[in-house]
Amino acid sequence: MTHPLRLGLAGLGTVGAGVVKIVQSHADLLMARAGRGIEITAVSAKDRSKDRGIDLGAYHWEDDPVKLAQRDDIDVFVELIGGDDGPAKASVEAAIAAKKHVVTANKAMLAHYGQPLAEAAEAADVALSFEAAVAGGIPVIKALSESLAANRIKRVMGVMNGTCNYILTRMETDHVPYETVFADARKLGYLEADPTLDVGGIDAGHKLALLSAIAFGARVNFAGVELEGIERISITDIEQAADMGFRIKLLGVAQLTGRGLEQRMQPCLVPANSPLGQLENAMNMVVIEGDSCGQIVLRGAGAGAGPTASAVMGDVIGIARGFRLPTFGQPASTLEDIQPAQASAPAAFYLRLSLKDAPGALHKITGALGDAGVSINRMRQYAHKDTAAPVIIVTHKTTRAELDFAIEGMAGTGVILDEPVAIRIEDV
Amino acid sequence: MTHPLRLGLAGLGTVGAGVVKIVQSHADLLMARAGRGIEITAVSAKDRSKDRGIDLGAYHWEDDPVKLAQRDDIDVFVELIGGDDGPAKASVEAAIAAKKHVVTANKAMLAHYGQPLAEAAEAADVALSFEAAVAGGIPVIKALSESLAANRIKRVMGVMNGTCNYILTRMETDHVPYETVFADARKLGYLEADPTLDVGGIDAGHKLALLSAIAFGARVNFAGVELEGIERISITDIEQAADMGFRIKLLGVAQLTGRGLEQRMQPCLVPANSPLGQLENAMNMVVIEGDSCGQIVLRGAGAGAGPTASAVMGDVIGIARGFRLPTFGQPASTLEDIQPAQASAPAAFYLRLSLKDAPGALHKITGALGDAGVSINRMRQYAHKDTAAPVIIVTHKTTRAELDFAIEGMAGTGVILDEPVAIRIEDV
Repeated sequence: MTHPLRLGLAGLGTVGAGVVKIVQSHADLLMARAGRGIEITAVSAKDRSKDRGIDLGAYHWEDDPVKLAQRDDIDVFVELIGGDDGPAKASVEAAIAAKKHVVTANKAMLAHYGQPLAEAAEAADVALSFEAAVAGGIPVIKALSESLAANRIKRVMGVMNGTCNYILTRMETDHVPYETVFADARKLGYLEADPTLDVGGIDAGHKLALLSAIAFGARVNFAGVELEGIERISITDIEQAADMGFRIKLLGVAQLTGRGLEQRMQPCLVPANSPLGQLENAMNMVVIEGDSCGQIVLRGAGAGAGPTASAVMGDVIGIARGFRLPTFGQPASTLEDIQPAQASAPAAFYLRLSLKDAPGALHKITGALGDAGVSINRMRQYAHKDTAAPVIIVTHKTTRAELDFAIEGMAGTGVILDEPVAIRIEDV
Repeated sequence: MTHPLRLGLAGLGTVGAGVVKIVQSHADLLMARAGRGIEITAVSAKDRSKDRGIDLGAYHWEDDPVKLAQRDDIDVFVELIGGDDGPAKASVEAAIAAKKHVVTANKAMLAHYGQPLAEAAEAADVALSFEAAVAGGIPVIKALSESLAANRIKRVMGVMNGTCNYILTRMETDHVPYETVFADARKLGYLEADPTLDVGGIDAGHKLALLSAIAFGARVNFAGVELEGIERISITDIEQAADMGFRIKLLGVAQLTGRGLEQRMQPCLVPANSPLGQLENAMNMVVIEGDSCGQIVLRGAGAGAGPTASAVMGDVIGIARGFRLPTFGQPASTLEDIQPAQASAPAAFYLRLSLKDAPGALHKITGALGDAGVSINRMRQYAHKDTAAPVIIVTHKTTRAELDFAIEGMAGTGVILDEPVAIRIEDV
């Protein structure tokens, strides 16, 4: 029998505690499936005295995760510290330099430093695995980099921030405004310390950049992700969308076009009866479209101790079994630097305007649309609130550039109150 | 650079042709991802002269797949012949004996001979991989045996026969009886030569038995799968179910209970707004519930040249990368012989009766239910057709044994026309 695989675990938050629980309670199962024992040798966290509801007595303690990463008695460094830079990155670099395998749930770090870290890991002939970094317990990294590796990937889409999906779902079901649900989400501990990471689409954007790298053989380019958060989505938008058979989701879309790599994380309308449209609450979903496999949909919990620890341990078991795959599915040196591209394919758009209650206002607006070459599929004007008349327009397929030109034209008419809200309708 | 991985391909139906197309058109992509070339050396099929729309000119031809499996110039034998016994099994055995890796899409063969074939492959230190055998392009085997390997699996469920789902969906959307859709499915080529394999639940039952083995560390036991087909599902059942917020699916369920391993493939009612309930047409879905990961849902095309060839090639790429996993995720010798168990957990049931139009008929029926300890949640009696009155009953949670006792009791009352239809309502 091979010797047990020894883990050094840095970060003992909910996910770290979840990993400890699995290792402690599932020893037989891990042994049966991995073909060898899996044990924790040493751990590290900020506060040694904190009660985490788990027994850490058998493990060595390191205050410094870098020291933990360098210990002779670990084979795998499990990084659950978080943060794109700082101790997380320093300790991962130290682990790789010390020829330890690394398993991480850190999307921010990989979105920013995935390329040099992958290169370093491959040069050191160690694994740098990150299933837990994207969509929690959903096995999307393995699906994309292994199961579907014979496919030319056409598009990857995903709802990958559970907090945003929770907010959008609750706004619809409870008919409460964004601000109210946001406050509730904060109380429930659903939001990051900096909530912009969630509601601004940054966290989900990190994940999309990682999926893109695998799907398209591209160097990770988070800066190339077009980001738009959910802060401007109103109850009106949600209800109007529902009324027309759509739901609004913070949806990531990545695809390779003739112009380059399109990556966007933005609110989109999707058909209410599609798998993405039916996704409720904090659930995550990733949709992969390949030239042979067709559309594959993966759904599950995108966060939480259990699901994320499940993904971490899936990677650990792979290492125990002796599997070594380059971080992004092919050698980091072969990943291409693909130019980012704006979404250029025409799409239908949902447009919400607030119109001044003045004669000829609608005429001026429709004129601006016509001048830009944007044609109207559906339009509704509602009874006035105060002096503003809400108008909802669904366009026929048009480019974002044409739509922006129309919106600029509207601004010049003097009949637009507030900034127009434009949301892409994604074909899914 | 490592030498190219050389495939011997037996069976050139739609899936075999799909594999040839991927190898021929995606050489660069396969090289980039697998880290070495993947090429076909030799092929075998029944009819050499048939035009398959692919160029086989560069490959050696073998009339006998056993000869193909034994060729010195192949590393991997890809078995796409089909059939549980006969040339498929003979050639797979020959390949293993010759120390060739095997990739197969053959669920029937593995459902019957998975244990000895896995033992032989492991003894020969070769891979025997079968992602393509279960749910086509959906990466469920890898998800279960690798990504989710740190989970104690609580339940595996699946809609894994696209033809049955197509029939049930079309009955509902087009309001046409089973016989009509069945005839259409046959015309469209959706049915196996022996349609019982599809509509009798046998094909889906094979797949369930394979998932069970991985999920529960059990020896494959297809004989232990409780099988019931969709032949007796009527339009009435589908419409009544829909009216109560359910859909009828041919659903496989496997779970380990105190009594043993429960495996059943049978029509079930599932909530219409659940992922399983929303699955339409020929799509497949597998639901995996683990103690850490929670519920993971995988959806995609369960059949067809592209999706199945995608799964075959995913396995081939894994072999090219040097990954070796025991066939069922742990050594075949460690799989347990777990006793099959009937579904014993209480469930609600849907019951359709055809009642004789006679005074006191309903009274006798409700009496039989009461005598068996089955209580009624909802009941509807409809206007009579001819001399039969259709009655729909939804029970509170009860065991199948109690329900069967009630149905036996009803038979003795003399007021039941036709055989009652009882369908389990599955908590999903």
